[in-house]
Amino acid sequence: MNYAEASMKLHHEKRGKMELAPTVSLETRDDLSIAYTPGVAAPCEAIAKDKSLAYDLTIKGRFVAVVTDGSAVLGLGNIGPEAAMPVMEGKAILYKKFAGIDAFPICLATQDTEAIIATVKNIAPGFGAIHLEDISAPRCFEIEDRLSRELDVPVMHDDQHGTAVVVLAGILNALEVVGKSLESASVVISGVGAAGIATANLLLEAGATHIAMVDSKGIIAVERDGMNDTKTKMAARINAEGRTGSLAEAMVGADVFVGVSAPGIVTEEMVRAMAPGAIVFAMANPTPEIMPDLAKAAGAAVVATGRSDYSNQVNNVLAYPGMFLGVLEARTPRFTNAMRIASARALAAMVEEPTAEHILPSLLEGGAARIVADAVKAVV
Amino acid sequence: MNYAEASMKLHHEKRGKMELAPTVSLETRDDLSIAYTPGVAAPCEAIAKDKSLAYDLTIKGRFVAVVTDGSAVLGLGNIGPEAAMPVMEGKAILYKKFAGIDAFPICLATQDTEAIIATVKNIAPGFGAIHLEDISAPRCFEIEDRLSRELDVPVMHDDQHGTAVVVLAGILNALEVVGKSLESASVVISGVGAAGIATANLLLEAGATHIAMVDSKGIIAVERDGMNDTKTKMAARINAEGRTGSLAEAMVGADVFVGVSAPGIVTEEMVRAMAPGAIVFAMANPTPEIMPDLAKAAGAAVVATGRSDYSNQVNNVLAYPGMFLGVLEARTPRFTNAMRIASARALAAMVEEPTAEHILPSLLEGGAARIVADAVKAVV
Repeated sequence: MNYAEASMKLHHEKRGKMELAPTVSLETRDDLSIAYTPGVAAPCEAIAKDKSLAYDLTIKGRFVAVVTDGSAVLGLGNIGPEAAMPVMEGKAILYKKFAGIDAFPICLATQDTEAIIATVKNIAPGFGAIHLEDISAPRCFEIEDRLSRELDVPVMHDDQHGTAVVVLAGILNALEVVGKSLESASVVISGVGAAGIATANLLLEAGATHIAMVDSKGIIAVERDGMNDTKTKMAARINAEGRTGSLAEAMVGADVFVGVSAPGIVTEEMVRAMAPGAIVFAMANPTPEIMPDLAKAAGAAVVATGRSDYSNQVNNVLAYPGMFLGVLEARTPRFTNAMRIASARALAAMVEEPTAEHILPSLLEGGAARIVADAVKAVV
Repeated sequence: MNYAEASMKLHHEKRGKMELAPTVSLETRDDLSIAYTPGVAAPCEAIAKDKSLAYDLTIKGRFVAVVTDGSAVLGLGNIGPEAAMPVMEGKAILYKKFAGIDAFPICLATQDTEAIIATVKNIAPGFGAIHLEDISAPRCFEIEDRLSRELDVPVMHDDQHGTAVVVLAGILNALEVVGKSLESASVVISGVGAAGIATANLLLEAGATHIAMVDSKGIIAVERDGMNDTKTKMAARINAEGRTGSLAEAMVGADVFVGVSAPGIVTEEMVRAMAPGAIVFAMANPTPEIMPDLAKAAGAAVVATGRSDYSNQVNNVLAYPGMFLGVLEARTPRFTNAMRIASARALAAMVEEPTAEHILPSLLEGGAARIVADAVKAVV
């Protein structure tokens, strides 16, 4: 099927993918007097006295804002807020489909860090949580961090943590398949943007001790050229010895490769140089760092990609609907590392007997959101 | 029926009054590949090349943002953004019910004029139009004016223009009932806030020549104490002679009284002092400036209120859904006075033979939105 053509046709026919549906009757004068004036003054006054009642009497407790500035959309890059709408609508309807909660796309006409923070804070009263999406690094780190600290509703940048959670889940099962442990595994992460940094952080939190991160200039190290604040902070944490080198050099003897970088940059030689039982997560989209058949031919024991047409799809739709469902149900003010690790372990545990071709649950089987939400709530 | 009690029960049971409903199928892997990745890249790229395609390929062309800062909600005053949610949700679902278009409430955590303007501009890319609601005067005037000039989508403050349009419609028919003309009628407007100013402006645009406006200190005049910029500008336009005096003095000999002010401030004596065939619009909510039975006993020929339990309810739900439907269908960048007058005349014309008890169409009969939208489109 030509998905591009089918998608253009669908979007044109439907003029977007969602509608606003009233959940109350509006047929009679009494209906209007209850849902609207004069009756509506009663819930207004109740909330004016106790703001927390907004969770019980309005849509706040059920609605997530999906916020983007259109600066890093899919593999398309900085295409702006209007062009980002089809993706944000997609994210929003997947909430309803997989977690039964509601979400609304907010596409911003600014890419200024302070303006984004101010705008999201200003619209937050009507939402129970904030989902940041497709905001480019390194601005995404400060935006998420500041909003998490300055708002009383949970904030999560999905490109970071949604990805990191599903990668961790997949790696846990892949390590089980090859009989290795996260603590002793040597991990190479290619790509030091939003997803790469968050994945490194989460793997460290989960117990990993040997991580090298590689950008287009090679292994990140404090003294290297072409660093930024985020990279320097990470390098200080994972590369105390100041190791440098190319991607090929980093991959020699590695147990796990995690690619959130660029198409085709991993060769068969590089995979052959990895340790026996190599795990390759090649998640550049739509073309992976190395195609699964090549990676396997070069000796990789477990291969995952971001694609739905190969086994082991790393799809953050497995994570975010359930994670937001959990924080909304718990009415907790923020996401924590404990919640992210619990989410990953819960996803991993959904696969009863992991094999090389089956390390992650299937999205369409369903059930992931409820299981992830319960895992989140268990560690609030 | 106890509307307050019924409304609390309804809001609690439903946790707000709306949900987000996907309009596309999400059952199969192909469905997901068309509605979301990878297919969704096609509409994204199309819009990146031509922003106007957002109207055809996303929800932008169908969605109105209902924006408030919670500063002037119903008769409740400055209750803040969370407490304003039940009203904004109500406004939003009435769009769907009466005009078949979608709206979403945005309740702002700021009451600063510049911050409101910046925030609305920042969230505008995803919306086809902006409905401002329950923002207190005089800030509402600058906010609407600036946003109308600085955004490329239509912006309307409903408390101003929705009210003004329905009042003009009602007055046109009421004048027909008593055999007078707008051009020669003497009009007194009590209340110089958002609704009062907009009503005065629209009546003037429609041909009225004798208008006195009265606030809590009496008739507004350039040299009077307690004026502000908005009042001074209006006084210079309608009160060149610098007339001063009380509400009672203003009403002597008047043909039309329009109250958008405070409960019970009009006495039977004041109505008795009006010209024969007096028209009284007493729209303070929930208690009018004078109760209809008292106004009639004092000789008023036509009486209207904001209440659904008396005849001649002035309800701006008659106007705003159709006005926004019209500008969305026309894809015009702003509202104009011509559209407002056309809307009022179209509403007035819906009543084939106006009588003292029937000067406005009934909301629940339906049809007003389509008729108003067509009237708007005819003068784009």
